[in-house]
Amino acid sequence: MLFLLFLTSVEALHNGLSRTPAMGWNNWNSLYCDVSESLLLDTSQILIDSGLRDVGYQYVVLDDCWSDGRDEAGRWRADADKFPHGMKYISDSLHARGLLYGMYSSAGELTCGRYAGSLDHEKEDAQSLADWGVDYFKYDNCYNLGRMGTAKLSFDRYNTMAQALLDTGREIVYSICNWGEDYVHSWGMSIANSWRISGDIYDSFARPDPICSCTDERDPHCIAPGSACSVLFILNRVAAYSDRGRPGAWNDLDMLEVGQGGMTDEEYKAHFSMWAMVKSPLLLGHDLRTMTAKTLSIINNPAIIALNQDPLGSPAIRIARNESVPKDGFGVGETHVWSGTLANGDQVVALLNAADADLPISISLEEIFVRAGPGGRAAQTKQEWLVYDLWANRMSETHAHAILDAADDAAREAVFRSVNWYNATELPYVQGLKAGDTRLLGEKIGSVLAGGKLEALVARHSAKIFRLRPAS
Amino acid sequence: MLFLLFLTSVEALHNGLSRTPAMGWNNWNSLYCDVSESLLLDTSQILIDSGLRDVGYQYVVLDDCWSDGRDEAGRWRADADKFPHGMKYISDSLHARGLLYGMYSSAGELTCGRYAGSLDHEKEDAQSLADWGVDYFKYDNCYNLGRMGTAKLSFDRYNTMAQALLDTGREIVYSICNWGEDYVHSWGMSIANSWRISGDIYDSFARPDPICSCTDERDPHCIAPGSACSVLFILNRVAAYSDRGRPGAWNDLDMLEVGQGGMTDEEYKAHFSMWAMVKSPLLLGHDLRTMTAKTLSIINNPAIIALNQDPLGSPAIRIARNESVPKDGFGVGETHVWSGTLANGDQVVALLNAADADLPISISLEEIFVRAGPGGRAAQTKQEWLVYDLWANRMSETHAHAILDAADDAAREAVFRSVNWYNATELPYVQGLKAGDTRLLGEKIGSVLAGGKLEALVARHSAKIFRLRPAS
Amino acid sequence: MLFLLFLTSVEALHNGLSRTPAMGWNNWNSLYCDVSESLLLDTSQILIDSGLRDVGYQYVVLDDCWSDGRDEAGRWRADADKFPHGMKYISDSLHARGLLYGMYSSAGELTCGRYAGSLDHEKEDAQSLADWGVDYFKYDNCYNLGRMGTAKLSFDRYNTMAQALLDTGREIVYSICNWGEDYVHSWGMSIANSWRISGDIYDSFARPDPICSCTDERDPHCIAPGSACSVLFILNRVAAYSDRGRPGAWNDLDMLEVGQGGMTDEEYKAHFSMWAMVKSPLLLGHDLRTMTAKTLSIINNPAIIALNQDPLGSPAIRIARNESVPKDGFGVGETHVWSGTLANGDQVVALLNAADADLPISISLEEIFVRAGPGGRAAQTKQEWLVYDLWANRMSETHAHAILDAADDAAREAVFRSVNWYNATELPYVQGLKAGDTRLLGEKIGSVLAGGKLEALVARHSAKIFRLRPAS
Amino acid sequence: MLFLLFLTSVEALHNGLSRTPAMGWNNWNSLYCDVSESLLLDTSQILIDSGLRDVGYQYVVLDDCWSDGRDEAGRWRADADKFPHGMKYISDSLHARGLLYGMYSSAGELTCGRYAGSLDHEKEDAQSLADWGVDYFKYDNCYNLGRMGTAKLSFDRYNTMAQALLDTGREIVYSICNWGEDYVHSWGMSIANSWRISGDIYDSFARPDPICSCTDERDPHCIAPGSACSVLFILNRVAAYSDRGRPGAWNDLDMLEVGQGGMTDEEYKAHFSMWAMVKSPLLLGHDLRTMTAKTLSIINNPAIIALNQDPLGSPAIRIARNESVPKDGFGVGETHVWSGTLANGDQVVALLNAADADLPISISLEEIFVRAGPGGRAAQTKQEWLVYDLWANRMSETHAHAILDAADDAAREAVFRSVNWYNATELPYVQGLKAGDTRLLGEKIGSVLAGGKLEALVARHSAKIFRLRPAS
Repeated sequence: MLFLLFLTSVEALHNGLSRTPAMGWNNWNSLYCDVSESLLLDTSQILIDSGLRDVGYQYVVLDDCWSDGRDEAGRWRADADKFPHGMKYISDSLHARGLLYGMYSSAGELTCGRYAGSLDHEKEDAQSLADWGVDYFKYDNCYNLGRMGTAKLSFDRYNTMAQALLDTGREIVYSICNWGEDYVHSWGMSIANSWRISGDIYDSFARPDPICSCTDERDPHCIAPGSACSVLFILNRVAAYSDRGRPGAWNDLDMLEVGQGGMTDEEYKAHFSMWAMVKSPLLLGHDLRTMTAKTLSIINNPAIIALNQDPLGSPAIRIARNESVPKDGFGVGETHVWSGTLANGDQVVALLNAADADLPISISLEEIFVRAGPGGRAAQTKQEWLVYDLWANRMSETHAHAILDAADDAAREAVFRSVNWYNATELPYVQGLKAGDTRLLGEKIGSVLAGGKLEALVARHSAKIFRLRPAS
Repeated sequence: MLFLLFLTSVEALHNGLSRTPAMGWNNWNSLYCDVSESLLLDTSQILIDSGLRDVGYQYVVLDDCWSDGRDEAGRWRADADKFPHGMKYISDSLHARGLLYGMYSSAGELTCGRYAGSLDHEKEDAQSLADWGVDYFKYDNCYNLGRMGTAKLSFDRYNTMAQALLDTGREIVYSICNWGEDYVHSWGMSIANSWRISGDIYDSFARPDPICSCTDERDPHCIAPGSACSVLFILNRVAAYSDRGRPGAWNDLDMLEVGQGGMTDEEYKAHFSMWAMVKSPLLLGHDLRTMTAKTLSIINNPAIIALNQDPLGSPAIRIARNESVPKDGFGVGETHVWSGTLANGDQVVALLNAADADLPISISLEEIFVRAGPGGRAAQTKQEWLVYDLWANRMSETHAHAILDAADDAAREAVFRSVNWYNATELPYVQGLKAGDTRLLGEKIGSVLAGGKLEALVARHSAKIFRLRPAS
Repeated sequence: MLFLLFLTSVEALHNGLSRTPAMGWNNWNSLYCDVSESLLLDTSQILIDSGLRDVGYQYVVLDDCWSDGRDEAGRWRADADKFPHGMKYISDSLHARGLLYGMYSSAGELTCGRYAGSLDHEKEDAQSLADWGVDYFKYDNCYNLGRMGTAKLSFDRYNTMAQALLDTGREIVYSICNWGEDYVHSWGMSIANSWRISGDIYDSFARPDPICSCTDERDPHCIAPGSACSVLFILNRVAAYSDRGRPGAWNDLDMLEVGQGGMTDEEYKAHFSMWAMVKSPLLLGHDLRTMTAKTLSIINNPAIIALNQDPLGSPAIRIARNESVPKDGFGVGETHVWSGTLANGDQVVALLNAADADLPISISLEEIFVRAGPGGRAAQTKQEWLVYDLWANRMSETHAHAILDAADDAAREAVFRSVNWYNATELPYVQGLKAGDTRLLGEKIGSVLAGGKLEALVARHSAKIFRLRPAS
Repeated sequence: MLFLLFLTSVEALHNGLSRTPAMGWNNWNSLYCDVSESLLLDTSQILIDSGLRDVGYQYVVLDDCWSDGRDEAGRWRADADKFPHGMKYISDSLHARGLLYGMYSSAGELTCGRYAGSLDHEKEDAQSLADWGVDYFKYDNCYNLGRMGTAKLSFDRYNTMAQALLDTGREIVYSICNWGEDYVHSWGMSIANSWRISGDIYDSFARPDPICSCTDERDPHCIAPGSACSVLFILNRVAAYSDRGRPGAWNDLDMLEVGQGGMTDEEYKAHFSMWAMVKSPLLLGHDLRTMTAKTLSIINNPAIIALNQDPLGSPAIRIARNESVPKDGFGVGETHVWSGTLANGDQVVALLNAADADLPISISLEEIFVRAGPGGRAAQTKQEWLVYDLWANRMSETHAHAILDAADDAAREAVFRSVNWYNATELPYVQGLKAGDTRLLGEKIGSVLAGGKLEALVARHSAKIFRLRPAS
């Protein structure tokens, strides 16, 4: 049988870190190689000021293009123009601000941007990361010199770095980015805290692109897991093994595109909600320096983040897919229902509409609880459930504006206090959930009777996210 | 040519065991990690009292979650809370009751439940099994550290344990559970007594689930052979190599779901019958402590079990598939005919209806005997056959209740005697079949003339199981 | 570019044998393990008496089940009951009759019938074959202990035997039977004289069977290349690389089913013709002791055999496939056109009807000669072609009867003389073709003008085989 | 993320050569093994006289069939009949004429034509190439002895030669021809300047052929990447990773078929344009000695060649595919739009009609610039673009005739002067583009307003190629 989740008396995974998915920011999606010390420090200040750090975004991850090759001893050198004070200065600064530092390399001869890669340099590079005070390491797959084609070939390549990181003695979250190749979902959890499962995301909800290319969601030998993968593509790809995530080891659906401008507000809400439910790391991908109020009020929703940081760590699973719905000009159109169990016995349900029309979507309790027993045998189908809308209490645009435009800390704090916003630094999600903090639970909008159905009209390209709570 | 079955002057497979498929019980499907000494002993008593032992269910298999890691010498340690008297005590107790003992591990760093796995510990763990008096060993595939991707990589990993088991000198049935990966149907018979061919079964007749994921029945590189595989899915998957089973080496369709509550009585009858015909091991998966009379009267049908324990050991093969039938809400709907040859020259035929409507299903003698020669050239098509319904003599619910509710052994025995139930401990199937014991042969309901057709109305989600006997 | 055929100044393939496909008989398809000295000697006599040896069938191949394991020195031992005078006696007898001797093993621990296999015994077994005077060796794939999964794993396994055979110094045609796995069509020609490309044939023209299983003709990783593969299935499978055959190295479509009884006379004619055109070895598979006149008059057609033994050695290629035709109850129905170039500048064309109705099939000269230049640019499209029907001069059933029923050699010879039958022992095909022997060229039935089309009404499940000859 | 293109501060690829795709001529497509010293020298003269050298065609590549095996020391020997003065004489002659010399071998035991291959002879053969003054080396895949099946197996085989070439110290462009097997698009750029991505092209625009066989464009394990691949097939195959090309490392779509006679003038224009845009090497494949004026006026279009030689080196990507269009008799019919960014901020767009009817094709600015940001967020969608037709200034047939028929150099020069033809020897493309040379920019035919669409009627089997330039 497979990868049992719900046990307690079990051996911990390799490094014991990331018991819930990592949250933070990564520069790649918006800024690519345009990186610098000031970018990281400015961004860290915005994370703090906007309240994002305090709803959970802790990791500031510097992606590719930071290095200047190796010195004569073979040690990595940071680009002195971009990072005049070096890497240790960055991590010290972030740590001083209550943030954590992430860095990047590739398990190849070169990084994707053709900087020095770490293949066959794992020991010295892991030591550099530890020396620099790095807390999170993303390890990409470009220029891997053909060392792939079986699980063993890829495992060995990524495991060399896993062991090198452990050997440094520093706690470093290890994030594998091998694009889902070579069955990483079957071995990633043995050596890493997360593993990418597809080519790169792009800022589109459902547009198919040949460069993403792995059009067969069942194929672990994608011909070329590239870029330009839509939100819908990635969800369909992870559907075959979304259950593989567990505390300390997560499917990585790639960085978020929220706030980049290529999707509608409803599409971004759906994208963010699904990433949270499926227990992907939540790494913001937009440029925080130009963040809008609408964007802020999506990514700071504590009721959605609480799904991601739920201590049970049980990813949502796709329980229904309907492809007999109106298609768009690309031939794309489908609806999904996803559901997962939460730590306190609640159940989350997403009604996702990726069809080309507004549609009612319904799902029976029998299907919602199919994993507790098919055919309606699950006890959960025999009780009433209260339905909470997790987007009902989204921060108003006015308040979000007030935060972003605030003159100083006091003004910002006043807004947070006035709307009684959730602060996870003060009250971690695990405790807030245990205490039944209502800010994490959305707003009650109805109920489903025993043996009944959950149904809602869902607008084109959007999702309804409901938390079901026992009526008793 | 492939894996010839019908020969006599051949070399035996590796350990000479399991000449017919193993029968017994395994706790996983119903109880997962909720295991204990009392569970195993209580269950063994029910197997005896209910008469299940004496229709053939001999192996009591303890699945995952029994261990407490390793001692300083690296030897497995049983969990002392769950198994206060240790493992040898269990096997001694079972052996004293005429039963056999099975245990579990994974060919990985950890078991699926994240207990100590046996990868790179094969020698010491095989010795523990032998020391503990174990008779059957199930070997799972979780946390295998990427040692997969070619037949050779998986073969080598499972062969290490096969040799370790042989080296102990104890007769231990070896059951590979690598979910059908890496073409195990082409090498499993060289080192094991059975091999799983799919992800885990779940308690549904035909519901498709993305987590089962190997939706392409032809793909030996399932992206993620997970769980939630339906009865219909597993049948379609084994159809490409159901003929690979032979005495001592069987396709394993996974443990039975009969009695769990997610299927109808007819669905469970069909599930049980097909597993028996295809010569899968028959391991009960429900909690015997809460067994219903209906469940008992399915799993104790000697006419069906006789198909499974037939000494010829020739698995049924799918000879027809019709997908042009009414589909259910999941888009699933098909009918099958499966057939196989039995030791005494009889032929078994299943008409399986997995469509969304009651349907007549018919099949010609030419097709039933196609493997003896296509195009009607087989001699068998030129004679009359009598048709026996193998479910006609199912134990009545009243009698089954009487057995389950009996006050003592005498009362139980009285019921068995009154219905003249088959006792395989006294009269093994091979002898009963040779003697033409009518309890193994169902009830005659008609005949098919030479060159004719077998036809029956088959209710939605059910199967008709017929034994054809030469009219002469 | 790929595997150039038409060159002359090239290096020979490994052993220099089988410049045209092997022809002969193999016992498996009809007799399986029912083998003996008398079978081989009786059959060899029939080959001679019926004239089959003298139209080209030279190899008498003993398949599986002949051995009695190994002696203490590890050397193969023939079964003394079946072969009382040993193997050398057989080869001596066959050689004395102008025939050649073939034997069988598997590149596995066991043969498919579970006799001693040659894996890791290649050196001693090759020596046994040489010592026994064997001329042809079929090497199967059962029980290969997982040594597959990449081209390299399979190549290395089969190459070990190739080198062992070469090292004996005896000329032994090497026939790989690995069922088309691991891209054998890309490496078989480097070490062998032929390579099987599918699971085992069975005696059906077009019936699909799940046990054949490789339903995707493009998949080199067939999940389970088994048995029960129809003539149509095998043709579609080889279509992707039929051009890989060349003098000394041939695609092997498996032994013939002609005369077994499961197909119609027209189906057998089509099967035989296609095997000949695609340059498969032609190994008769029926029991010659019960051969009918109709069967004899199919397999002794020198005009068809001349296609197979054509010295150019250029296999026919599928140039058209139409799936929009009436389907049978199995959902099967298609028509093909295949064509190939012959040594003397002639062109062979097959119009193959595997649809469920009689149909006209037509093909333009542009398509027939597409490989000499697409778009009608080939010079061949600009001339007139005379059309010869290669089945027009099939031996009459009366004459075939007369041969089979003849009292003695003189009577048989009289029949052959009376119909002026072709004798390839006296006049090899290469010479007969060079001399323009009309017995090899069929009967003229019309012509196709420059830029025109070839068209014929083709009955359901049959083929028209035409030789096109330049009109000038 | 994947293989970043647009960076400047990056490490160079292995040998630093071929910053734009190679251009030249290869004898294979038209002449196969009919090679000789005089062919190469005659052809080089035509390249010069016709002006082709001076629009960029520099490499004269000798393909297979040139060798006479190895001498006793194991060194390659040229065929003395075909090349009486040896190979160094050829390269000296070509160099003296301002041309470069290419040669061929296979990473196998034999070449495809069965001449001595270089597998396990890499060191000595690389030295021969260097000694002979070779500038370009094509390395094929025939007879590779099963050394394939994972990226690692193929990488190692091709890397051995890459290192051997580097070790000679001579600058030799390295062209891998492994037919797209084993994910070469993921490792080819680490060791080579280009890599073939399919089986061999043939002279057809869209005819499907089973021998090409890789009908699933997503399958990196093509069962048999053979020959007879159409222009359309190759384009669809590269679409999944056309973005992998970059300066120094290019997808190779195979040699050109322009001028061979199997396609129409419009088909050849489309074929040539697409190869240029996707940044394939442009190796002429026809016999220059019989070149027509129409052919010359396709391949000498500097406005198209400038796309290929654009210094940005960013290959066009398929941004739209419509399969709901009229199909031909082969069942083929589709339209595409491809687009790519050029060095000066221009954008190239191809409207490709492979349907069986004339059709209007349109594409929005949003889609054209989707890679700069989906959903219309790209700045480029908010401005007006002028549209230039890159075939508007094709050389007239009269002038092309005049060049081909010219009595002497002076006459030829007069024609070039009279039409003011582009001379890349004098003004390299990078400078011509920087200077805005109008001969490289086509003719303005209209504009697209901000937020608007580009639309044109495109005749059956043709393409419109537009350069879009900012209106401001």
